[in-house]
Amino acid sequence: MTDFPKSVEFREEGPREGFQIEKTIYPIEQRIELINALSETGLKTIQVGSFVSPTYVPQMADTGELFKRINRKEGVHYTALWLNEKGFKKAVSIPEIDMEPKLLFYASDAFAQQNNNCRASEMRERQRDWVHLYKEHDLVPDSAYVMAAFGCNMEGDISTERVMEDFKFIIRLSEEENIPIPNLFLADTMGWGNPESVKRLIGEVRNLAPDTRIGMHIHDTRGMGIANVYAALSMGVDLFESSVAGLGGCPFAGHGHGNAAGNVCTEDAVLLCHELGIETGIDLEKLISASRLAEQIIGRSLMGRVMHSGALDSFRRKV
Amino acid sequence: MTDFPKSVEFREEGPREGFQIEKTIYPIEQRIELINALSETGLKTIQVGSFVSPTYVPQMADTGELFKRINRKEGVHYTALWLNEKGFKKAVSIPEIDMEPKLLFYASDAFAQQNNNCRASEMRERQRDWVHLYKEHDLVPDSAYVMAAFGCNMEGDISTERVMEDFKFIIRLSEEENIPIPNLFLADTMGWGNPESVKRLIGEVRNLAPDTRIGMHIHDTRGMGIANVYAALSMGVDLFESSVAGLGGCPFAGHGHGNAAGNVCTEDAVLLCHELGIETGIDLEKLISASRLAEQIIGRSLMGRVMHSGALDSFRRKV
Repeated sequence: MTDFPKSVEFREEGPREGFQIEKTIYPIEQRIELINALSETGLKTIQVGSFVSPTYVPQMADTGELFKRINRKEGVHYTALWLNEKGFKKAVSIPEIDMEPKLLFYASDAFAQQNNNCRASEMRERQRDWVHLYKEHDLVPDSAYVMAAFGCNMEGDISTERVMEDFKFIIRLSEEENIPIPNLFLADTMGWGNPESVKRLIGEVRNLAPDTRIGMHIHDTRGMGIANVYAALSMGVDLFESSVAGLGGCPFAGHGHGNAAGNVCTEDAVLLCHELGIETGIDLEKLISASRLAEQIIGRSLMGRVMHSGALDSFRRKV
Repeated sequence: MTDFPKSVEFREEGPREGFQIEKTIYPIEQRIELINALSETGLKTIQVGSFVSPTYVPQMADTGELFKRINRKEGVHYTALWLNEKGFKKAVSIPEIDMEPKLLFYASDAFAQQNNNCRASEMRERQRDWVHLYKEHDLVPDSAYVMAAFGCNMEGDISTERVMEDFKFIIRLSEEENIPIPNLFLADTMGWGNPESVKRLIGEVRNLAPDTRIGMHIHDTRGMGIANVYAALSMGVDLFESSVAGLGGCPFAGHGHGNAAGNVCTEDAVLLCHELGIETGIDLEKLISASRLAEQIIGRSLMGRVMHSGALDSFRRKV
């Protein structure tokens, strides 16, 4: 009935997703401490920050410096995000960054406008330029994302056809440019997905590209996060982007009532995997310590569950 | 592949679970206001409070008065909890209570000791006396619960056999006493369940009692709450106990790190059902208002998600 993977890879987004959304700019030393703690958990990829407009997102203005000051752990990839060519050029100039270039697509025009100041179709066309730019630097994309794939606060429900058009474009682009695009990500940017729509869309992408790895970027905006991870696992998905302590969120996902949930919480998702007998390579106790550090830094109770209640194994050991 | 029910019943436990665990004793007027708000949401059962020792749980000392002062809405059942005969006798003396007697079983001795000051086997034998007592008052049990059915912080994992022994006892008791026990509840009191163990145990109970309704009492202690609701729904379960705003929790479920999650959040679970096309009879917007009222009363950010991000339908209407 289900097709759970044997092992799962989590890519940690907390340092970017978490701190870009806060009004406060936290001291760089605190963010370094968190990234260093995350490096010791067994996580293999940590998104350290983004190269975006320091006017609009001043919280990320020191991302370059951050890369230079963290303790790089062997075997861990320290990655960055950019939303345009200017950001990429900054990133590529910093040798400490593990370049894993992304291609970004929007299933919602309104969200494309908010996040990238262009229409979704324009962003799509730009991705061809991004591929060329990556090639100029001897790089190929690591992943392609379709954002707001399950719905959008501004546009409402997003049709499967709309999402699949983007994925078809991605496959064509990969063929035309003769480059691999190893990972196709479905991003539920504003928390519109539910376990059934997650399974349905994963099925569609798999039909389109049976040999390509599918990843999920999940937000827990409406409490469906872990259920959606479970649904994806049951479809064999073995690649997730998540945030320690449930840090982060999409600035356009809130309802004006404050404290809306952010990304799906890494340690809660890791606990799910371990309880299902799926390997993650992550030391859950160390991850919980990192999430408590994140809470200490942010200075308010965060949305993660296991960080407050303890991993089951810690109780099992005491019995 | 899945066997979702057409409609689902939620029984609201927030007013008891939520306020019994708080250190503060909130003014009775505030709890009345919350119960009155919940009465307008379409919920058909609201557990108003419990009749337990006022020494150990002073928060519930005025439960009797609470029943007399709420605005009773027609069609809504206002129920109470008791853990011993003394509590039952208090409850049955108050005509405003909708008596829906429960039978309580513990799958963990250590938890029985903490919660009821006796061994699980002793509690089990007492349930026969409870049936006799209920009969004396022309009452029959509404539900039987096996608590800590998925695991216990003090005893660790609980075997399926252990849980099923309790359910076999319940079935025998029902036959011997010639009374119906309409609802069999699996209670994940300390948040040890995961979607697969939930499905497994539901399957076992259904095999044992194919014609009896199965209910789930779910705690979100480790973030598995909504995933476990989804798993239960996929097994056809149509009866859930939950708490508005995710209020509550088990006093023995925490890890000393504060703010551990409580019961699975009613409005998040209702959103899941609605998104899956399952009817609940609940007005989600009104429920969200009630959960924001709960947050206002408690005075800190609560764990519910939809209450902070808004129901999807509210966005759909704006598009």
